[in-house]
Amino acid sequence: MILSPVQYQKGVLQILDQTMIPWEERYVTLDTKEDVWDAIHTLKVRGAPAIGIAAAFGLFVLAKAIRSTDCNDFVSQFQELKAYLATARPTAVNLFWAMDRMAGVLEDSVESVCQNGASDWESQRQALLDRLRLEAEAIRDEDEAACKAMGEFGLSLLKPGMGLLTHCNAGTIATARYGTSLAPIYLGHERGYGFKVFADETRPLMQGARLTAWELTKAGIDVTLICDNMASMVMKNGWIDAVLVGCDRMAANGDGANKIGTSGLAILAKEYGIPFYMFVPTSTIDLTAKTGEDIYVECRPSEEVTSKWFEREMAPKGVSVYNPAFDVTDHRHITAVITEKGIVRPPFEKGLADLFPGSTE
Amino acid sequence: MILSPVQYQKGVLQILDQTMIPWEERYVTLDTKEDVWDAIHTLKVRGAPAIGIAAAFGLFVLAKAIRSTDCNDFVSQFQELKAYLATARPTAVNLFWAMDRMAGVLEDSVESVCQNGASDWESQRQALLDRLRLEAEAIRDEDEAACKAMGEFGLSLLKPGMGLLTHCNAGTIATARYGTSLAPIYLGHERGYGFKVFADETRPLMQGARLTAWELTKAGIDVTLICDNMASMVMKNGWIDAVLVGCDRMAANGDGANKIGTSGLAILAKEYGIPFYMFVPTSTIDLTAKTGEDIYVECRPSEEVTSKWFEREMAPKGVSVYNPAFDVTDHRHITAVITEKGIVRPPFEKGLADLFPGSTE
Repeated sequence: MILSPVQYQKGVLQILDQTMIPWEERYVTLDTKEDVWDAIHTLKVRGAPAIGIAAAFGLFVLAKAIRSTDCNDFVSQFQELKAYLATARPTAVNLFWAMDRMAGVLEDSVESVCQNGASDWESQRQALLDRLRLEAEAIRDEDEAACKAMGEFGLSLLKPGMGLLTHCNAGTIATARYGTSLAPIYLGHERGYGFKVFADETRPLMQGARLTAWELTKAGIDVTLICDNMASMVMKNGWIDAVLVGCDRMAANGDGANKIGTSGLAILAKEYGIPFYMFVPTSTIDLTAKTGEDIYVECRPSEEVTSKWFEREMAPKGVSVYNPAFDVTDHRHITAVITEKGIVRPPFEKGLADLFPGSTE
Repeated sequence: MILSPVQYQKGVLQILDQTMIPWEERYVTLDTKEDVWDAIHTLKVRGAPAIGIAAAFGLFVLAKAIRSTDCNDFVSQFQELKAYLATARPTAVNLFWAMDRMAGVLEDSVESVCQNGASDWESQRQALLDRLRLEAEAIRDEDEAACKAMGEFGLSLLKPGMGLLTHCNAGTIATARYGTSLAPIYLGHERGYGFKVFADETRPLMQGARLTAWELTKAGIDVTLICDNMASMVMKNGWIDAVLVGCDRMAANGDGANKIGTSGLAILAKEYGIPFYMFVPTSTIDLTAKTGEDIYVECRPSEEVTSKWFEREMAPKGVSVYNPAFDVTDHRHITAVITEKGIVRPPFEKGLADLFPGSTE
């Protein structure tokens, strides 16, 4: 069974509360704007695509509850809801991207529906809502299709029985379905590939232990949890045939930012002669960043390292902590970039640019 | 201030309770055989040299309390104490080494003291105890001298202001004083070198966060804590000029077993062109092991990864965990081996053999 973290059925929007994983599989119904805001703000829904999908369906569900008497008022209230939800996680690019897409569709529809279309407000309202629902479903379905495409391309690089190492969580619960770097693992599992997966626990936030180990276990996939610093040893043991990781942002030259620790894995993989595959939806490729030098890496609070999750502080009070959220993997250490449009191999500069035929970069 | 974890003064044996670090600096007095056993068994004292020193002083203190009327009975009770303490941590080689040394000295002394020496039992007893105390002090002083020598050799490879990365805890609290890989940091600090130290937290047992960050902070040394998976990034940032690590066992070809994660650091250091120094007391060099293949690596319980220290289980119930305690760093990734007898550079096979002139290996 491959989970979807955002589910809209029969008028009800539910999300998997990822803050409760692995302890409890709890779905939360999002009714009010506060519900949606809270779900995004408190990371109940996480993963760039899943956040976008939750925001899109959230806007649709909230639009259904708008009380208004004409199009202008409806649009105005919709914009207020959008502005409110935007404050839930101001650094989540996909949140803005998805909501802008919903707002754009609404504006386009207003022209055809309200100015030239059905004359009574209730019919107009229903037409606008239908259009919003279709757009939310499109955002979800396009992501699922992209994940599945990445999964197929990724699977073409793998063989049955392989040992695979993954980092953080770029899995089904971070996307519409299938995930990015875990997509080939799910597709392979459906086809009896019998992969042996190793999941880095991924300090400090433990996404590998909490999320990846959980979703793969739930799907019946053979997964073994390791600490991040054990990657070298499992590679040396000959247990790893490929490393599969996600990507948060990729520069034009193929340097890719992903969860802290990814760049080290790539160097280890190169040393041990193991292919290193980065799964990169084209939406995360940023040709305006020439190299990894142009990618800003956020540093997060020291408490994430010293006290979060723990019974007691694990370090002396007041110790300096360096806690970057991401690191940039050098393109020289990446064997291939897997996108939903195909596999890009070095030289990445040309291959990545070719994915965007209209680009003048 | 550079701490000593085992302190014998005016008849009182005290050890720093390392299970309370970094939360409380508590010294525990060891009076009874149960006290000594418990301190070793529950890891209140840890680090191979510190365990040996605690056991040696422990035997001396317990010998002082032996009630007997002649040499034979005294030796017999001493042997019983030694056999009892040996059960505290059966895999700790230094525990046996130190106690064997104490027992050997006692046997030698019995000959001179009881058979040919002073005639009254109280004088004989005092002579035996003096000899035991001297031996315990010698075990401690030799270790401190070895650590200091490694520190001087190590420091000769470093320059003021350097950034240094360390892993686990091979510090003053694991030895008589100074530590092994931390010895050059302490000596440099005494001489105003102004090192900037980065300490890996060292999952799963967190020795870097709990112990290394604590003892360096306490000594007033500039230390920054990182998660193990951030090592690649601090190296890429240009913050690290050398990596200093300890060693649990080194094979004849220079392959060295140390805390899990060490082998990966060595590979990263090589990639970034950073020297990687392993601090190896000659007592840990095992010429009977030809290569790292001959070094057995113990796997430890999965709970150390999934639940120890944490408020809740950090992974789904029943997930497979691989938890090796050590890994073996390939000699090709080691820039130099620092022993108390000098610095050994590649080819290690010859350099290490030369440290043992009497060896026929």
